[in-house]
Amino acid sequence: MRSDKLGETLLPKRIALPVFASDALSSVAYAPDEIMLMLGLAGGAFAVTHSWQVTIAVIVVMAVVVASYRQNVHAYPSGGGDYEVANVNLGPKAGLTVASALLVDYVLTVAVSVSSGVQNAGTVLPFVRGNEVVVAVAMIAFLTAMNLRGVRESGTAFAIPTYLFMLGIIGMAAFGFFQHFTGTLADAESADLTLLPEGGTDAVTGLAAGFLLLRAFSSGCAALTGVEAISNGVPAFRPPKSRNAATTLLLMGTVSITMMVSIVTLSQWTGVKIAEDPATQLVRDGRPVGEDYHQLTAIGQLSEAVFADFPIGVVFVSIVTGLILFLAANTAFNGFPVLGSILAKDGYLPRQLHTRGDRLAFSNGILILAAGAAFLVFAFGANVNALLQLYIVGVFVSFTVSQTGMVRHWTRHLRLERDRAARRRMQRSRVINAVGATMSGIVLLVVLVTKFQHGARYAILAMGVLFLLMLGIKRHYGRVSRELAIDWETDKPVLPSHVHAIVCISKVHKPTMRALAYARASRPSVLEAITVDVDPDDTRVLLAEWERREIPVTLKVLSSPYRQITRPILDYVRSIRSGNPRDVVTVYLPEYVVGHWWEQLLHNHSALRLKARLLFTPGVMVVSVPWQLVSAEGAEREWIDEPPIPGSVRGGGV
Amino acid sequence: MRSDKLGETLLPKRIALPVFASDALSSVAYAPDEIMLMLGLAGGAFAVTHSWQVTIAVIVVMAVVVASYRQNVHAYPSGGGDYEVANVNLGPKAGLTVASALLVDYVLTVAVSVSSGVQNAGTVLPFVRGNEVVVAVAMIAFLTAMNLRGVRESGTAFAIPTYLFMLGIIGMAAFGFFQHFTGTLADAESADLTLLPEGGTDAVTGLAAGFLLLRAFSSGCAALTGVEAISNGVPAFRPPKSRNAATTLLLMGTVSITMMVSIVTLSQWTGVKIAEDPATQLVRDGRPVGEDYHQLTAIGQLSEAVFADFPIGVVFVSIVTGLILFLAANTAFNGFPVLGSILAKDGYLPRQLHTRGDRLAFSNGILILAAGAAFLVFAFGANVNALLQLYIVGVFVSFTVSQTGMVRHWTRHLRLERDRAARRRMQRSRVINAVGATMSGIVLLVVLVTKFQHGARYAILAMGVLFLLMLGIKRHYGRVSRELAIDWETDKPVLPSHVHAIVCISKVHKPTMRALAYARASRPSVLEAITVDVDPDDTRVLLAEWERREIPVTLKVLSSPYRQITRPILDYVRSIRSGNPRDVVTVYLPEYVVGHWWEQLLHNHSALRLKARLLFTPGVMVVSVPWQLVSAEGAEREWIDEPPIPGSVRGGGV
Repeated sequence: MRSDKLGETLLPKRIALPVFASDALSSVAYAPDEIMLMLGLAGGAFAVTHSWQVTIAVIVVMAVVVASYRQNVHAYPSGGGDYEVANVNLGPKAGLTVASALLVDYVLTVAVSVSSGVQNAGTVLPFVRGNEVVVAVAMIAFLTAMNLRGVRESGTAFAIPTYLFMLGIIGMAAFGFFQHFTGTLADAESADLTLLPEGGTDAVTGLAAGFLLLRAFSSGCAALTGVEAISNGVPAFRPPKSRNAATTLLLMGTVSITMMVSIVTLSQWTGVKIAEDPATQLVRDGRPVGEDYHQLTAIGQLSEAVFADFPIGVVFVSIVTGLILFLAANTAFNGFPVLGSILAKDGYLPRQLHTRGDRLAFSNGILILAAGAAFLVFAFGANVNALLQLYIVGVFVSFTVSQTGMVRHWTRHLRLERDRAARRRMQRSRVINAVGATMSGIVLLVVLVTKFQHGARYAILAMGVLFLLMLGIKRHYGRVSRELAIDWETDKPVLPSHVHAIVCISKVHKPTMRALAYARASRPSVLEAITVDVDPDDTRVLLAEWERREIPVTLKVLSSPYRQITRPILDYVRSIRSGNPRDVVTVYLPEYVVGHWWEQLLHNHSALRLKARLLFTPGVMVVSVPWQLVSAEGAEREWIDEPPIPGSVRGGGV
Repeated sequence: MRSDKLGETLLPKRIALPVFASDALSSVAYAPDEIMLMLGLAGGAFAVTHSWQVTIAVIVVMAVVVASYRQNVHAYPSGGGDYEVANVNLGPKAGLTVASALLVDYVLTVAVSVSSGVQNAGTVLPFVRGNEVVVAVAMIAFLTAMNLRGVRESGTAFAIPTYLFMLGIIGMAAFGFFQHFTGTLADAESADLTLLPEGGTDAVTGLAAGFLLLRAFSSGCAALTGVEAISNGVPAFRPPKSRNAATTLLLMGTVSITMMVSIVTLSQWTGVKIAEDPATQLVRDGRPVGEDYHQLTAIGQLSEAVFADFPIGVVFVSIVTGLILFLAANTAFNGFPVLGSILAKDGYLPRQLHTRGDRLAFSNGILILAAGAAFLVFAFGANVNALLQLYIVGVFVSFTVSQTGMVRHWTRHLRLERDRAARRRMQRSRVINAVGATMSGIVLLVVLVTKFQHGARYAILAMGVLFLLMLGIKRHYGRVSRELAIDWETDKPVLPSHVHAIVCISKVHKPTMRALAYARASRPSVLEAITVDVDPDDTRVLLAEWERREIPVTLKVLSSPYRQITRPILDYVRSIRSGNPRDVVTVYLPEYVVGHWWEQLLHNHSALRLKARLLFTPGVMVVSVPWQLVSAEGAEREWIDEPPIPGSVRGGGV
């Protein structure tokens, strides 16, 4: 996408909603399950009584977070993500904390979304059951390949599955509500099962019950992942950008809450039961259902109950749920390299991740993300419940830090602002962000306390490692930059007085003759050809040829008692330098250019090795004089045509 | 080792014997077992009756082969191995056949020797039993690490274990013979077992019996591996080289035959039984011994019988057997890269395997060998019997081709020789080599027929693939060499009329200033600095700095609508070239030199990518102007101090 054409491809709200909302909306595929599952640890009755309370708490948090991010969108129309907000308002350490949290959460988004998608696919595809890890890793591989290849993105490609998912879930809910009120709503397949508390039948009371409610709440907060996405993408909206983005954010929150409420309500009515360990916790006629029982997701059970006489509805809901989860995973594939690029620009990650126009930068990011997600899927057996214990920490770290940063932002601006109306708006925003920061902070605390033992510590460990790594990289770049800085008082640049050119010769053929011609064209102070006497016979042949062809440059033979090539040349170069330390030595190396990777294995190794070592010698220039073999002709084109870069839609292109 | 000092480190016979004989002598650790095991497929009685006959056949072949190679040693005092003999006398295709066979057999030598060593270790180290694959792969890893690191070799290091092994086996035999004739020789632990024929109790007769005898003979010929080693190493002997080498070869053959005869005789006397499938074939009191029975090697069983009252003798024999097998595997680690180097010199393998003084050449060979051997050990479960089905083919291919080549050699020399005594000696040699060639050919045929189904086909397939691969590489080099050859009539070298120099600038700091100074020192026709406008802010800062510092070179800003770096520079270079196709464009790239591999991850990526693509553009020189960071200072030394090269003892150094 040309920079100056980016303006022509901005997104209307109806396209922006699906582009940015797939991650947030897709979490209703696992968040309600997770609430019921956690509460179910204390038995079926406990789950029925409390799932509503927990759901309301989650919805309140979501409403507050949406309201808070609407302030971000107005304050940072440039699309300042949480990282930028934290960086600008709270300093680099805060920014780095958010960045570490976000990087870890991108990996978890892929792992959780793909695992949940595979779990949902199990509703209609029996062969998936029992092979979840293999299928999930295959899906990650597919996403990786797609993103590495660089599929040209379009807003429509996002819009269709997202709207179909909304249609599927809200349509199912509407139909279910209609059935309920007409008394025709069927029971869920797990309605006749009894859900036993984990590990026995003791009722959970007091502190333990409270802790379980908090755990269920933490897990339910998975519904909030992806809410911040719009605040990163404001520049992609049509003007008025900020207002449109804020409206879209509100819309997304509304849809998300509606779906969440619908699923929890329908689950209560149809008697859906979700157990952490179905084989022992679920009891039919007094006996545990055992290992053969395959527990469907809440959406799966609901669709089977609501569409009992309309099986195509079940398939439809299952497919669109799988699709949106897949899309949610894909957004991480877009977001991870973009964040990596921003961090690289700020010197926290290797600089080569920055260059935006270069696909290689994105490829590295994509591969790291995929490897991390595949590892998690493998380590946790594609178990959504287990993976969710690691998730959310990062999200709420970044929510909390970013909202705190926003409070600072308003405070700073209030100091300068004199207009009363503007001041009032800012004060209002500051209150909203303060509420958001406080609530996010409390949720973060709850999440840490309830999930630390169950897996969150691994996520925190990973964030800590990333934090230190990025700090180390930044310090390294700083050190190098100080080392390279010029002190214009003392470091007067001086031109080398004398250029001593050396052309390395192994045979008399076109590449060496070209190197010689180029070296002569540079008119050095001294020019000589050198060869290393590794094999006396070869050397004799070369010298004879050199003389016969009357080549007008002296050919010097370097002896090599140990039959090495690199060493004698290095020694010779050093001897020239030590005679005249202010000179510069130019070493001309003929290099073959070949078209195929396997040809590369057969050529240039001596030249590359020599070059690698010459670079360590001060006062030396190494000149590669390429000779393009016929096979290289086609290969040049491969380098030039570059496929599109993933994530461009969210950056403001369609 | 300096070429001119090689002469000072020649080997006396007493050291040369162990240096070259470990491979040949070590095969008595598995060859007798293999004969008994194969014959045992037809039951214990069959094995007892025929093992002597088969052993005598193997010994006859060995005597003939030793006699034949004594001729090679006299004819090629330069140490012409089988590859050279075949190449010179029968043409390159024959040479390549031998080379493929030898390469495959080196890999098998490692796999067989290590597996057999591990099996022998099982005699005294019970924890090895059942973990053979893991232990064998660990041993290969250890050998690889040792050879990669480059241990300085000494003849003594070879001499001690080899002489101890001779002492162990011949001492055990002498003591056993003494016990036998004084009537005190104990029975082997398997003496009271009955060895059933494989798959039932039917007696094997007629054709089947004959076939089994041939199979046993083929397997027993494993004793011949390594006999040719001395013929490669004649230059390492003290003068008179050829005569000393021939004597050593004879000595080695005598020791080998003595040990072989001793082991087979003692096995008969003590009633050793070796079964392919001990669990079902071995019966105690009418019932199979079952999976719990651990079958010791013949040497293991013999040492326990002979040293029944002297357990330290058992441990000693087991240790020296393990050591010599380990040493035998190590000789392949020395031989494989040396052969690779010779083949690379002839253009059959990538040229970088040739450079003798360069350790990297050897490292690649060592890694390939180790990977191949580890794969075989893994695929065949470290089972010596299974691996031996693939072995020997290569050995006898090279014996046969090389001996045939020797017959040609003598015929050619007889045409020129007039001296009667010399002619008589040559005719005698020719007869010996003709007998050797015929016998080797017959054995090769027997090996092919009896082992093809049991695994030899994989070895043949591998040789075929290697043969074609090496032929392809040779053709590639030939094609390139023709493409690069100069036609001195038409290809008159012309000096470029005009040098257009470009210095790539991203920042004003020491490395770019040095690049600029060096570029100016080369006095090009046109000199300009360029920068790519990826980020307008950065570009503004750069331009301001450039002006403030009054740098006396124009800085040109290339626009980059797609925010790429490489593409705009490539396009600019092409535009210069297309204006003046006879000019040459010199691109100066400042490059950082860092000391640690992880620092490398953080630097130079844009420069390297740019360089890789510029090389495809005709008429361009790429100049790397290195800047050594402080961290690079220590790293230079690592490049220079090179550890010793494995196999140097056999090449003529101690």
